Amino acid sequence: MADINAIAKQFTDFYYTTFDTNRAGLQNLYRASSMLSWEGTQILGAADISEKLTALPFEKVQHKVTTLDAQPSSPSVASLIVSVTGLLLVDDSPNPLQFSQVFQLIPDGGSYYV
Amino acid sequence: MADINAIAKQFTDFYYTTFDTNRAGLQNLYRASSMLSWEGTQILGAADISEKLTALPFEKVQHKVTTLDAQPSSPSVASLIVSVTGLLLVDDSPNPLQFSQVFQLIPDGGSYYV
Repeated sequence: MADINAIAKQFTDFYYTTFDTNRAGLQNLYRASSMLSWEGTQILGAADISEKLTALPFEKVQHKVTTLDAQPSSPSVASLIVSVTGLLLVDDSPNPLQFSQVFQLIPDGGSYYV
Repeated sequence: MADINAIAKQFTDFYYTTFDTNRAGLQNLYRASSMLSWEGTQILGAADISEKLTALPFEKVQHKVTTLDAQPSSPSVASLIVSVTGLLLVDDSPNPLQFSQVFQLIPDGGSYYV
C-alpha cells in the first residue's frame, strides 16, 4: 500500500500548500461534479466550492497535518479515500484549531481531482 | 440532502451503539472487500476487521458523535461518504479522547455495508 499512501501524501501536501498560499488555486482540484461538505453545508461544483473557500474569513492560515490515512474506494476505479486530521493556525491566534477533512481522489489523466 | 443525512445518522447511530455494546456484531456491517484503515494500518475483509475491533484493549467504550457530514460518493451508485468526529470515553478514564472516522456506505439490498 506504499503507493496509495504516497499518492495521498503528495496530494494533501499540494492541497494544503495551495490552501495556505493561494486559496483561489484550489479551484483547479475540483470538477463540476465535486462536492464539498463544510460544517454541515453541502456545496456542489468547482466554481461554488472555490467561492466558499476564498470567502473564508481569515487572512493567514496554516494547516499542520497530524494523521493521514488512505485506502482504495472502488474495486473498479483507482479512486482513493483519504482522511486527514491536524491543526489549523489562523491569522495570529496562538491557539491552533483541530480539523478533520476527507478527500475522495478520482483519477483524471495523470493526476487526481476531488 | 435530508435523506442522505438521515441515512448517515441512522447508520452511524447503529454502528456506534453496536461498537459500544456488542463489538463482535460489527462484523455484519463489513464484507470480504471492506477495508479498515486504523491508525496507519490497513486491514482487509470482515473477518480480520472484526478480529482487530474485538481485540482492542478496553472493556467499556462509549462514542459521542460531535459532527457528522455525508455526501454522495459516486455518480452511478447510491454510495455515501460519511465523516464523523467525536469523543471517546474509554473504561473509567475521566478524560475523553477525540476521534475521527470515515465510512464509505455501499448499498446492499435494503441496507448498507462499509
